Amino acid sequence: MSAPRRYEQIADLLAQRMAQGIYPVGDRLPSIRTLCREQGISITTAQAAYARLEASGLAEARPRSGYYVLPQRRLDQLPTVSRPAQRPLEVSQWDQVLTIVEPVPGFQPLHRLGSGTPALDAATLRPLVQLLSGRYHAADARHLGYDSLAGDPALRLQVARLATASGCLLHPDDVLVTTGCQEALAIALGVLTSPGDVVAVDSPGFYGAMQILAAHGLKALEIPTDPRLGMSLEALELALDQWPVRAILVTPTCNNPLGYTMPDDRKRDLVALASRHDVAIIEDDIYGDLAFDNPRPLALKACDTEERVLLCSSFSKTLAPGLRVGWIAPGRYRDQALHEKYVSTGASATPPQRAVAAFIDKGRYQRHLREICRRYRRQRDIMIEWVARHFPAATRISHPQGGFQLWLEMPEGFDSLRLNERLASERLQVAPGPMFSASGKYRHCLRLSYAASPTAELEAAVRRIGEVAGELLDAEG
Amino acid sequence: MSAPRRYEQIADLLAQRMAQGIYPVGDRLPSIRTLCREQGISITTAQAAYARLEASGLAEARPRSGYYVLPQRRLDQLPTVSRPAQRPLEVSQWDQVLTIVEPVPGFQPLHRLGSGTPALDAATLRPLVQLLSGRYHAADARHLGYDSLAGDPALRLQVARLATASGCLLHPDDVLVTTGCQEALAIALGVLTSPGDVVAVDSPGFYGAMQILAAHGLKALEIPTDPRLGMSLEALELALDQWPVRAILVTPTCNNPLGYTMPDDRKRDLVALASRHDVAIIEDDIYGDLAFDNPRPLALKACDTEERVLLCSSFSKTLAPGLRVGWIAPGRYRDQALHEKYVSTGASATPPQRAVAAFIDKGRYQRHLREICRRYRRQRDIMIEWVARHFPAATRISHPQGGFQLWLEMPEGFDSLRLNERLASERLQVAPGPMFSASGKYRHCLRLSYAASPTAELEAAVRRIGEVAGELLDAEG
Repeated sequence: MSAPRRYEQIADLLAQRMAQGIYPVGDRLPSIRTLCREQGISITTAQAAYARLEASGLAEARPRSGYYVLPQRRLDQLPTVSRPAQRPLEVSQWDQVLTIVEPVPGFQPLHRLGSGTPALDAATLRPLVQLLSGRYHAADARHLGYDSLAGDPALRLQVARLATASGCLLHPDDVLVTTGCQEALAIALGVLTSPGDVVAVDSPGFYGAMQILAAHGLKALEIPTDPRLGMSLEALELALDQWPVRAILVTPTCNNPLGYTMPDDRKRDLVALASRHDVAIIEDDIYGDLAFDNPRPLALKACDTEERVLLCSSFSKTLAPGLRVGWIAPGRYRDQALHEKYVSTGASATPPQRAVAAFIDKGRYQRHLREICRRYRRQRDIMIEWVARHFPAATRISHPQGGFQLWLEMPEGFDSLRLNERLASERLQVAPGPMFSASGKYRHCLRLSYAASPTAELEAAVRRIGEVAGELLDAEG
Repeated sequence: MSAPRRYEQIADLLAQRMAQGIYPVGDRLPSIRTLCREQGISITTAQAAYARLEASGLAEARPRSGYYVLPQRRLDQLPTVSRPAQRPLEVSQWDQVLTIVEPVPGFQPLHRLGSGTPALDAATLRPLVQLLSGRYHAADARHLGYDSLAGDPALRLQVARLATASGCLLHPDDVLVTTGCQEALAIALGVLTSPGDVVAVDSPGFYGAMQILAAHGLKALEIPTDPRLGMSLEALELALDQWPVRAILVTPTCNNPLGYTMPDDRKRDLVALASRHDVAIIEDDIYGDLAFDNPRPLALKACDTEERVLLCSSFSKTLAPGLRVGWIAPGRYRDQALHEKYVSTGASATPPQRAVAAFIDKGRYQRHLREICRRYRRQRDIMIEWVARHFPAATRISHPQGGFQLWLEMPEGFDSLRLNERLASERLQVAPGPMFSASGKYRHCLRLSYAASPTAELEAAVRRIGEVAGELLDAEG
């Protein structure tokens, strides 16, 4: 065996320091320039050292920023490809969803680890709070009339402008404002389906969308997903051949709950597949602007030349859910979508729309995104490390490309509902896996939010959840 | 013929002065005390004179306030009892609704005579505007998380308190906050019906509710209504015997568009009838708090001992529609209603809810209602007089008991859609009758808003609409 080369030595040295906590998870490693000076090496050697760290999954390059410490984990610890039921099913699981979206009176979770609420304490959100105030300084309530049915024109203009980042060319008139992304999804499904129809969904998938299927009398055909690549196009094609699928409901960018972003070529293939089978696609892009890559990934809608993608999103994850400002770009279904919006809520609340439009117009939105994505990425890495440290060894952990949700897969037989029962007395709660499936699959999985700032108390909570999970697993074994 | 008595002479004198415009429509007449002094008569004679004016429909007594000048009209000029189609029908008329709720780009009506927007310039609304501002003075956005699914507890408490005025005993947990009354109605229909079901509706009736029927694939069975008594219970009973009616959708208090309030005994009979046929009632009470009587009339819900009434309302007509703060008291259907709300919008916008709760808590709501109802009553009388003066003689006019909408019935053959076409170039618009019917009836009717302050410009607009209506009628004849 030949002696290690210089760049290998440097890489090993950095790995050692990371293991010792000198460079903690989520932190930036020394710049190439600093490393050269410190170690008396050439730029080429420093670059080779970082390339080695990156290849071994210990560090991550971020454009125009440098290299960052990743949690020490092996890629084969990712969750397995999901294997949902292979036939259309009615959706249930409302009871589980209800405990997360509306905890029983008196139950106040200590940490919102099961929740979908973003971080609301960012300094970059403060101008939004000020804009909300400022908008009301008019002497009377004349600005509080009915909103235009399509939504505030200033906001629709800003949404259309932002959409260029995901490769979409939208005119403001292509956009309808909605009361959150939930109304956007409900409108899309209302436009496309009738009771009894079959909708293909990524599985695991967003429980809120699944509950719309339940309320509309629709059947979910769950499509397996790969934790890095997203919905299996092979399985989808088989499903489209076999069943009368009316719509494909998919969250291809910063998926909830798995965190993957479908690669661009697969996004194109998905749109082409939908075109061949003449099926509409409902794209949930609610976490899309929280991608850790810059520029953010393409939307499916950007690959769509036939106006068959209904793009749904909101500012609930990027700004604040209490604003209830969402939107839909319904493509060729605009007229029907306008009718659906009218019958569902009549209009959207005016004040939050205007504040969001002004916030974007002043460049505050992009600034906030930069700040909050940096923060979420760091918190992702810390949470992964905590889970690796405190959860049973067999725990598989997702590697989110954006957003603030982690998906954990425990060995089969583990029961996440039982876990929540055990945790309730300690005021802890996770989002149990079966919520994310029409057929109640993923009982051995759970979703953890890393939106909150990493404190010692939060780590103690994660440790405690890991302990109880271990006890349940031991009892099971 | 005997000589007129003294009280008759006084009444005639007052009538003369009213006709001369010395006491204009909507104004208060001299108090009993003043009249006694001025005319040197006894209190008994003054009271008899006013009783005579009241009996002839020229004045109106208002408790604790005095006598007011009514427009000079005969009661047989009320609209006729409606005669809608006698079978369940699919709803259309979306195109007409769209032109009212979302006028074509570039068309900006001069006066909002066709609109459902209330007066937003009242001084008593200003504290609400201030409360909306004040709510945001917190340093960060932490108060902008997801709303509780049922809605802000402080607001639900206030709604439950207010409901006692309509005779309803509600617990805050009986109330779910919604995004406007439209979402409340959509939730109620979603809970009770499946596509293809039949819903009995008052006819003419609110077009927004009718469009929900269309979107949900429901059939409307239109029930005739009397312009003073509301929905014909006899016709309803026949309909319930003949058709599988799943729900009765009714606006019994300050009806839109007819303005009547169903008498209490008929409200009780309606609830009893629904009970005998085991049918649920969806009560739209959105204009209920704008009744000109004080205390306001009972809600149907107050007569309901079986939790079969789903009471729907909002602050869109009493305060401002841009707030999108509505609510539903769904009775025995609470759990299903909560699910419907979750799938429809997920939650309601937080800031307006808190502002409305504080506005009510500080007594501002009651103060605003007193002020705005006084104003609407005066404007009703003025608008009735304008219509009597400027519209064709055959025009029949409703006599609203609350709210801010007038219903006009022209002779058969008149076409209110054609009227709007003719008015468009002058930037005038009314709400055409067929919007208010599933079967496109009431083409000869129209709705006019009297929410705006009576100005010379507004009277000129009403005069012009009356002129064009007369031309159309002459062309028809």
